[in-house]
Amino acid sequence: MSTSISAKLASLGHALTPASTPVANFVASVQVGNLLFISGQIGIEAGAAAHPGRLGRELDAEQGYQAAQRATLSVLWHISAATNDKLLRVRRVVRVGVFVASTDAFTQHPQVANGASDLLVAVFGAAGQHARAAVGVAALPLGASVEVEAVVELEPGP
Amino acid sequence: MSTSISAKLASLGHALTPASTPVANFVASVQVGNLLFISGQIGIEAGAAAHPGRLGRELDAEQGYQAAQRATLSVLWHISAATNDKLLRVRRVVRVGVFVASTDAFTQHPQVANGASDLLVAVFGAAGQHARAAVGVAALPLGASVEVEAVVELEPGP
Amino acid sequence: MSTSISAKLASLGHALTPASTPVANFVASVQVGNLLFISGQIGIEAGAAAHPGRLGRELDAEQGYQAAQRATLSVLWHISAATNDKLLRVRRVVRVGVFVASTDAFTQHPQVANGASDLLVAVFGAAGQHARAAVGVAALPLGASVEVEAVVELEPGP
Repeated sequence: MSTSISAKLASLGHALTPASTPVANFVASVQVGNLLFISGQIGIEAGAAAHPGRLGRELDAEQGYQAAQRATLSVLWHISAATNDKLLRVRRVVRVGVFVASTDAFTQHPQVANGASDLLVAVFGAAGQHARAAVGVAALPLGASVEVEAVVELEPGP
Repeated sequence: MSTSISAKLASLGHALTPASTPVANFVASVQVGNLLFISGQIGIEAGAAAHPGRLGRELDAEQGYQAAQRATLSVLWHISAATNDKLLRVRRVVRVGVFVASTDAFTQHPQVANGASDLLVAVFGAAGQHARAAVGVAALPLGASVEVEAVVELEPGP
Repeated sequence: MSTSISAKLASLGHALTPASTPVANFVASVQVGNLLFISGQIGIEAGAAAHPGRLGRELDAEQGYQAAQRATLSVLWHISAATNDKLLRVRRVVRVGVFVASTDAFTQHPQVANGASDLLVAVFGAAGQHARAAVGVAALPLGASVEVEAVVELEPGP
């Protein structure tokens, strides 16, 4: 049984690749009490958005699902960094916000957001089930198609 | 005096009608400590958005107010489900996020969001007064006009 | 050394000017435990948005930075009001949400959001470093260009 987040992801066929660390006056995550707030993440590759474009125009819902999954891998990177990569330090994923760059005619934001939700439950099981808000926005940093932020409840520990 | 959320809503002329339960890998609400995080809700009727359209185009601010009220009834359904329908289990409505599908020329998002705020205060009194963020987004799931999410502080209890 | 938020801002060349108090059924901030949730703020002058317009059309990133800074001054007003203006009551700025009214072609939301982040760190030092989500929305109340909301951890005290 996997006891690290990275090993669990590997067993699911995903690599835990380093997500960018903010170079501005904010940080990737802040812990307050047992709650960990993770900054909004987009998938980045070689300094550019991994899945650029807008849902309903350049991308369809299945491609958006992949983009949400990719952004969630960055969320998981920061969870791993904050928990010393220990899977069991995550008691519960509390809330996930999924911002989808979309045309005003696009309506399948939930299908896109499932790319985040499915990966979180694959990694954490029932503890990965979260409250969620999924909305369609005008644009995202670097022209990304999906941004994911999260609040996670942690077990006490090193 | 009403002691259940459903009776209080009935006294206000509203029926507490079942809101949809997520069929994906997320849940309607998550409690962490005494905080209850409720997923973003839209009004749904017969599988479709109850108030579809975009503010500033198909809908005006008064219709948006109704849509926000309707979405908040779904929020209240999930609060009721998490509190065994007990009005006094809600110590405080902490934060409400109101996402309004709007044109880029629409500016009356606060008037729309008041449909959520007014109902919460009608139900919970001073405990219903909350911090709020109201913004205009490009599009919402199912073509809904308003989505409402909430964080609520609960009293301990069954 | 400045021990009040207003004096610290003055030392940075900013005046702490009264932000609007909601006239609807919500409030500027809600404290739950040691967390203070502050409502989404826009800069307001004489009843109108201080920095109206949309990024990528009427405003460029530098003007957006100023708008984000201005909205954050309103956030700081409400933090000051909740803490009796005591700088050291703020243990940590936990999360900041920055909503940027933008065209769908605009990609510099992080640069805009830095107007919020830079001011918070200038005021609170390392305690001002926060988790952040920055997204581009269709429109904001009163036609504002930037809205900023925050969650802050407080030290116990009067």
